[in-house]
Amino acid sequence: MSHYSVADMSDTIVALATPQGVGAIGIIRLSGQEAIQLCNEVFFGKNLHHQKTHTLHFGTLRKGDVILDEVLVSLFRKPNSYTKEDVIEISCHGSPYILQSVIRVFIEKGARLAKPGEFTMRAFLNGQMDLSQAEAVADLIASESAAAHQVAMQQMRGGFSKQIAQLRQQLVDFASLIELELDFSEEDVAFADRSELIELIHKIKNLLQQLIHSFKLGNALKSGVATVIAGRPNAGKSTLLNALLNEERAIVSDIAGTTRDTIEEQIFIEGVPFRFIDTAGIRDATEDTIEAIGIQKTFEKITQAALLIYIFDPQEMNMTEVENALNVVENTDLPVLVVANKVDLVEETKLVALTKKGQELFGENFLTISALEQTHLVKLKQRLLDLVLSDQSYLENPVVTNIRHFDALNRAEVALNQVLSGVEMSLSGELLALDIRQALHELGTITGEVTTDDLLGNIFGKFCIGK
Amino acid sequence: MSHYSVADMSDTIVALATPQGVGAIGIIRLSGQEAIQLCNEVFFGKNLHHQKTHTLHFGTLRKGDVILDEVLVSLFRKPNSYTKEDVIEISCHGSPYILQSVIRVFIEKGARLAKPGEFTMRAFLNGQMDLSQAEAVADLIASESAAAHQVAMQQMRGGFSKQIAQLRQQLVDFASLIELELDFSEEDVAFADRSELIELIHKIKNLLQQLIHSFKLGNALKSGVATVIAGRPNAGKSTLLNALLNEERAIVSDIAGTTRDTIEEQIFIEGVPFRFIDTAGIRDATEDTIEAIGIQKTFEKITQAALLIYIFDPQEMNMTEVENALNVVENTDLPVLVVANKVDLVEETKLVALTKKGQELFGENFLTISALEQTHLVKLKQRLLDLVLSDQSYLENPVVTNIRHFDALNRAEVALNQVLSGVEMSLSGELLALDIRQALHELGTITGEVTTDDLLGNIFGKFCIGK
Repeated sequence: MSHYSVADMSDTIVALATPQGVGAIGIIRLSGQEAIQLCNEVFFGKNLHHQKTHTLHFGTLRKGDVILDEVLVSLFRKPNSYTKEDVIEISCHGSPYILQSVIRVFIEKGARLAKPGEFTMRAFLNGQMDLSQAEAVADLIASESAAAHQVAMQQMRGGFSKQIAQLRQQLVDFASLIELELDFSEEDVAFADRSELIELIHKIKNLLQQLIHSFKLGNALKSGVATVIAGRPNAGKSTLLNALLNEERAIVSDIAGTTRDTIEEQIFIEGVPFRFIDTAGIRDATEDTIEAIGIQKTFEKITQAALLIYIFDPQEMNMTEVENALNVVENTDLPVLVVANKVDLVEETKLVALTKKGQELFGENFLTISALEQTHLVKLKQRLLDLVLSDQSYLENPVVTNIRHFDALNRAEVALNQVLSGVEMSLSGELLALDIRQALHELGTITGEVTTDDLLGNIFGKFCIGK
Repeated sequence: MSHYSVADMSDTIVALATPQGVGAIGIIRLSGQEAIQLCNEVFFGKNLHHQKTHTLHFGTLRKGDVILDEVLVSLFRKPNSYTKEDVIEISCHGSPYILQSVIRVFIEKGARLAKPGEFTMRAFLNGQMDLSQAEAVADLIASESAAAHQVAMQQMRGGFSKQIAQLRQQLVDFASLIELELDFSEEDVAFADRSELIELIHKIKNLLQQLIHSFKLGNALKSGVATVIAGRPNAGKSTLLNALLNEERAIVSDIAGTTRDTIEEQIFIEGVPFRFIDTAGIRDATEDTIEAIGIQKTFEKITQAALLIYIFDPQEMNMTEVENALNVVENTDLPVLVVANKVDLVEETKLVALTKKGQELFGENFLTISALEQTHLVKLKQRLLDLVLSDQSYLENPVVTNIRHFDALNRAEVALNQVLSGVEMSLSGELLALDIRQALHELGTITGEVTTDDLLGNIFGKFCIGK
């Protein structure tokens, strides 16, 4: 793992900022005190020292007499750049050979190859963004769905950071008051109004709980909703999956040059990714031992399921059998969608009775479809979406997607509960202050008021180079 | 194959300009009349219509209410751009999802997805560069060695284009004079001085021959010098190859983020690529049937060899045997480097005799080395380089690397020879003019004065998208 030290900020860093490989354009990025000077030494066309910020300059990049490339140089003067330092971006021809040669020239001139995420780390350290916003940059780049993209974008642009920072500041003020009391401890004064403190803590806890609650959704949006399709052999599991996937493929028109690797078993419903967990290899139970065992085995094996679609053929199973089969699902929180398939083969009167019974038992989570005829698939998808989103709007409310934030929020809540019970027990200000400081610490790690080199190394080490 | 039509120039085109994949930055490029307008419709931050050329603007890119990304827009106003049209380059976060979404927005707004090489084709059609320069852009991007890079760079920046264009213009003037004679044919005048014509044609032919001659080198620099290492089993073929490769690997320090796929059997000697042809699978001859057969088989199989290294163990073979073995090489033009290996195991006096005999037979192409001890490898590499470059300096003189140019040059030479013999036979101006026109046509295809949609489609269809 890379190790970061704030002292490194004196260096000028350089890296390839575009993906590796051959392309029309490749961008090399420099940031730091010497960025403009270093570029000026090898750039022929204009004297960059005399150029304004946010301007573009055409010229050649040379190593001695050899022209390495004809390039376009973008000039950003501090603090009006991504890192708040002087930044140069050089747009070269997208040849790995050229890009490597150009980077090498800058390293020979004294620049240092940037560590992963070092540009964004500098942006954070120079106050361009807080830590959770910096982390959202990586999430944004990794986002593969509209939902993940929107959540990351929201967080990058502020998200819950500001709220946390504000409440934390109020808590800091309280901690200061309580610590002030300690100086006057012999006089038994209370500068910090305990009821106001309790009120503030409840306010913070409300926000924390809301954010903690959002993590389940956030995680699903980021990683895809883990969905299992279960059912007897020949109930239509594969037909359903294929029907869903095919429709998806038709929607995803392939814009040449930008198609991403197809994730075979992922579909997007209104931008929300659903990941179908491969249950192949889990032997379906034979008729005799009841399909229930099949389901149980599925869940013993696949504990990360967030959603179950149970599909059955109403010609083969009645609703009581379905109910029994589902009784073995131990995780009672797991949303289950019960889907009667092949209903095009079922008589009208029987279908009415089936639907009535199904809705009695499972309410809105009972659906009739024909996977083969592709009927009612839209309804099914809408229901899947509703089950994931419940009443949460990820577009309007901040959503936590980062497990580090989730952990810190939980630890902050524990610390705040400590403070609350401390107040109740009329603990001394000294002990109270300690618990408040702990909560402040946890909240501070989210937005980066509190950091360590290890924490930064951990976070930015996962970034790509050049970001 | 893509089909290009000049009529398409009225469209505004859009494409991803950076390599596919996840990176810090991805660039989307727009070119055409509507480029600034289309971008302005989705860009929030500044009104791009009021901004100067060669300026950079930070803002958000939106689709309706949804923020697709925070971006930097580069603005280039015609004719001061790559294509000589209005050009917008949008620097996005390097997420395939975002890049695809942004391209999609522009296509919905009326831009057309660019065909491969279409930006460069427009640059050519708008007079930014001639055709051979445009082709050099692709070569530049594909270049993997210092030599290939330098040759492509030289050609992109003009190379032999200007010379050809100038001489062609003089020939055009001659053709006009001769055609003028035709209008006065009854009066038997000769506006075009035949001796001057002959002189000009010789001048052009000189250039053509020089360029045609350079193709062998150019092709080697571009594709790597096809090199075969032959010799008896245990002569040290693999040891030599590994020694060369290992040294190479030590030189190529891996700059993270820019290392390219290692081509297992390629080494660069002062930037010139040598490609070692895998002769594994070709069974070495047994002692009895003489190793000569081994070599012959090698060449029956590998006809593209440009260079042969024959390696032998002087403890096992004497020079006469080596000479005999090499006698079967039918291609007498093929440069052969004879290498006595394992000389660290040979007695001093024997070594002196061996060297004397070897140099008598093969001159400078005889070398003594120890592949295992890595002695005299520098000398060997220098000799390989000398054999390829002969007296040609690819840094000073233009080098033809493109087979299309090579073919056109040859056809032009044939046509010029026709003109010469026509003058000698005092052919009528009419027939002379025909032959000159043919030569002009061939020369014109190189620089692009003469093009067809098919030719353009052929050339630019091989470019990457976004270039």
